[in-house]
Amino acid sequence: MKLKVKDMDIETGGILVAILNEEDAHKLDLHHEDRIRLKFGRKETTAVIDIAHSKKSVPPGKIGLFEEVLVKLNVKQGDIVDIDLAEKPASVYYIKDKLEGKNLTKDEINAIIKDVVMGKLSAIELTYFVGACYTEGMDMDEIVALTESIVKNGAQLRLDKHPVLDKHCSGGVPGNRTTMLIVPIVAAAGCTIPKTSSRSITSPAGTADTMEVLAPVALSVEKIKSVVEKTNGCIAWGGGVNLAAADDKLIRIRHPLSIDPEGMLLSSILAKKAAVNATHVLIDIPIGNDTKVKTKKQALKLKRDFTKIGKKLKMKIRVIITPGNQPIGNGIGPALEARDILYVLTRHEKRPLDLEKKGVSMAAKLLKMAGIKNAEKKAVQILESGLAYKKMQEIIKAQGGNPDIKLKDIQIGKYEYTFKSPKAGIITDINNFTINKIARIAGAPKDKGAGIYIHNINEGDFIRKGAPIMTIYAESQIKLKYALNVLKKIGGIVMDHRLITS
Amino acid sequence: MKLKVKDMDIETGGILVAILNEEDAHKLDLHHEDRIRLKFGRKETTAVIDIAHSKKSVPPGKIGLFEEVLVKLNVKQGDIVDIDLAEKPASVYYIKDKLEGKNLTKDEINAIIKDVVMGKLSAIELTYFVGACYTEGMDMDEIVALTESIVKNGAQLRLDKHPVLDKHCSGGVPGNRTTMLIVPIVAAAGCTIPKTSSRSITSPAGTADTMEVLAPVALSVEKIKSVVEKTNGCIAWGGGVNLAAADDKLIRIRHPLSIDPEGMLLSSILAKKAAVNATHVLIDIPIGNDTKVKTKKQALKLKRDFTKIGKKLKMKIRVIITPGNQPIGNGIGPALEARDILYVLTRHEKRPLDLEKKGVSMAAKLLKMAGIKNAEKKAVQILESGLAYKKMQEIIKAQGGNPDIKLKDIQIGKYEYTFKSPKAGIITDINNFTINKIARIAGAPKDKGAGIYIHNINEGDFIRKGAPIMTIYAESQIKLKYALNVLKKIGGIVMDHRLITS
Repeated sequence: MKLKVKDMDIETGGILVAILNEEDAHKLDLHHEDRIRLKFGRKETTAVIDIAHSKKSVPPGKIGLFEEVLVKLNVKQGDIVDIDLAEKPASVYYIKDKLEGKNLTKDEINAIIKDVVMGKLSAIELTYFVGACYTEGMDMDEIVALTESIVKNGAQLRLDKHPVLDKHCSGGVPGNRTTMLIVPIVAAAGCTIPKTSSRSITSPAGTADTMEVLAPVALSVEKIKSVVEKTNGCIAWGGGVNLAAADDKLIRIRHPLSIDPEGMLLSSILAKKAAVNATHVLIDIPIGNDTKVKTKKQALKLKRDFTKIGKKLKMKIRVIITPGNQPIGNGIGPALEARDILYVLTRHEKRPLDLEKKGVSMAAKLLKMAGIKNAEKKAVQILESGLAYKKMQEIIKAQGGNPDIKLKDIQIGKYEYTFKSPKAGIITDINNFTINKIARIAGAPKDKGAGIYIHNINEGDFIRKGAPIMTIYAESQIKLKYALNVLKKIGGIVMDHRLITS
Repeated sequence: MKLKVKDMDIETGGILVAILNEEDAHKLDLHHEDRIRLKFGRKETTAVIDIAHSKKSVPPGKIGLFEEVLVKLNVKQGDIVDIDLAEKPASVYYIKDKLEGKNLTKDEINAIIKDVVMGKLSAIELTYFVGACYTEGMDMDEIVALTESIVKNGAQLRLDKHPVLDKHCSGGVPGNRTTMLIVPIVAAAGCTIPKTSSRSITSPAGTADTMEVLAPVALSVEKIKSVVEKTNGCIAWGGGVNLAAADDKLIRIRHPLSIDPEGMLLSSILAKKAAVNATHVLIDIPIGNDTKVKTKKQALKLKRDFTKIGKKLKMKIRVIITPGNQPIGNGIGPALEARDILYVLTRHEKRPLDLEKKGVSMAAKLLKMAGIKNAEKKAVQILESGLAYKKMQEIIKAQGGNPDIKLKDIQIGKYEYTFKSPKAGIITDINNFTINKIARIAGAPKDKGAGIYIHNINEGDFIRKGAPIMTIYAESQIKLKYALNVLKKIGGIVMDHRLITS
């Protein structure tokens, strides 16, 4: 059947979709989500069809094409394409098998992931896959196969180095910006660490948001390669490159209901490491009531799983379980956290010692994994001697930022309010969730200068009356007001303090 | 945030969707599939958002709206709408609960179905719901709640009659057009039977396709009501009215992977009966290797389920299990089946006796359920006396067809080929699947005159050499050729016949 192209002027985000009028669909006995083959000259592709019931958007005789199909066929408005029935790809049947509780083979999983990347599976089909992995679970072989397929069907950073180090944190702890200390220390020690990080989704700052205060982070694979070849390290935004492209498409389906099938979570993390060809990976799992992983039991289960899958992927993985009950560092929000990092690297008196200690310790563990002797001592020396700061300046420069950026160049929100202790007392709880919430309402991470500065206070500390506890920063008066309102409403949530009665 | 409307010139099929450019989405911290509230004057609605990454389709400052949202807000291209964040509806969290294996309450299921009908749930969210119902199963209370919600959130045919009879067949048997005998017999007996039927999806003819040879079937709820008030019965297309509207949307999600969660299947059937306020329902479950329900065990399970749910819905249900190993009637395809019906109603010598017997028996069972005495005898009399034919003429007329339609007015495909027995033998198998396939390839149900006529032959019959077995009809030479090719290729699939060696 020959149809005239209508440019729908929309992209679907990857999926190949075409719209037929119901009259034409009826003639070919086609239903919603069936497949057609489209031909134009020598080019051809398949697409999933959607059916228009009115004649307004796609009248009979026309075919509505989305951006992805227009590009693939190299057609434009008014061109005539030839269409024909096409079979559903085999991957659709594998998804149905998974829904029916069967375990999938390596080849079946690879067929699904390949079709995901090629845009051959519709959002509905992909949702069934994610849903089935969630309700039916995935075994170790499936997780390994998924990880390998994601890597195979995406771009890879092929570095001519060994070992290649990497790290990951399961997240949920405000301020915990260790990556920005670990990368310069490890790189200054001569090891390779091509780090890609995410932007915040639900927290007040991701590592990519924080690094962006100092340098551009949206780098191409080639650029990442050249930065790493020059400096041994980088801190780039993972979402800006198509390393693990299939994973991004799965996340798009998982996000709406926050569906995180455990196996997909594990493979999502490890695929990103495998895509940069990491050989040694340190994984930090903070635990606490108010963080992502709540109990030691859950953390130990994750540790076992990571180690097992790592073995199958021929990747050395070390997992550490750390306290995650309160924020680490003082600043929370991109600029405030970037400033903390510069405080530590430049040995400033205001540097947060908890963040420094954790960063150095993790860097040392990575160096030790890479076979470096006296790793702990070396990491401390690199930081104290200023070599880590020098390395960070090199990385900032290589990524296209200003290596001489000073503390005063970092713009902190100009509207601020400091919350002081109304009475003397002991801090019993600093709640990660509420700290995150207030920092976000103040504008973080979109307003880079917004967030919270905790005045070097930790759970268990004694506080005298009138001492500053935390300062909220915002880039507008109204957002500061919103944040204060919420702080007031959730009432003392940030910290309890009991009177010292003696 | 104020944005200028761009008319995307597409309908989504019900779901309220808006597209933002990623810059604007970033400003509001919105992600793919998040919700926004849109205001225009006094009108407002929520919509699921999709994010455009290029500036081509939706540039910053604009908002792309689909047909459904345009209509709901009464806005047009260039109007300025005000948008704001909106929460996900509670139903999304119930879907997540179901995915996590929890049973849903009546109110939770109703919230989901209400949002389905209002277009508030995205295709991804709805797919998670169907997937969860498939993998996690549904208990009796959930099935009843789903059925009641579907009815409550759709149009209903409110007839001032009691009892209201209805019937259903689980399907898969070619030619089994009993509805078109049952409706006129039951209606002629003075009982009310407002029958809605589906069109074919994968078979060569649905009841709606067949009735359409005699009269229009795409009737509004008001029209159905007036036809039933005039004649006691109707044979209308269920897809043309929004009785059980939510069910149609669920089917749209189930179709791509043929995902039929058992609970949804049951509620889909019974919701359509409840929507016409049926009080007594006869359900026919044909069993056979080559039909929908394969074993007696499966059929008995269905019977138990239907009966249980019926009780909870206060609906009298009788389930009969019938042989479904071979076609019933001789014609297969809309016109050929409509002709069989006229053969039976007009007492023609060519009438298929198996179809007549089954139709009369089922009509009698329904009359008995309605409390009519000597139901079997009455049904036979009504048919033999011509009262059933007269009633069918009334129904055809009320639906807008020609009541005096004659056998010769029914157009059978003019290209035909008769397959004759090459040797004497016994028919051992008439395969429903291959009969269906060949009839569809010949053009049925789109070409109403296409299909197969089986020369009054049943499994076990002795056939002499040269006797006609079946005739394939098509409306074009090429489709006839296709059908014959397939017949040849699947080789004798339609029937085996063994030599009588004696």
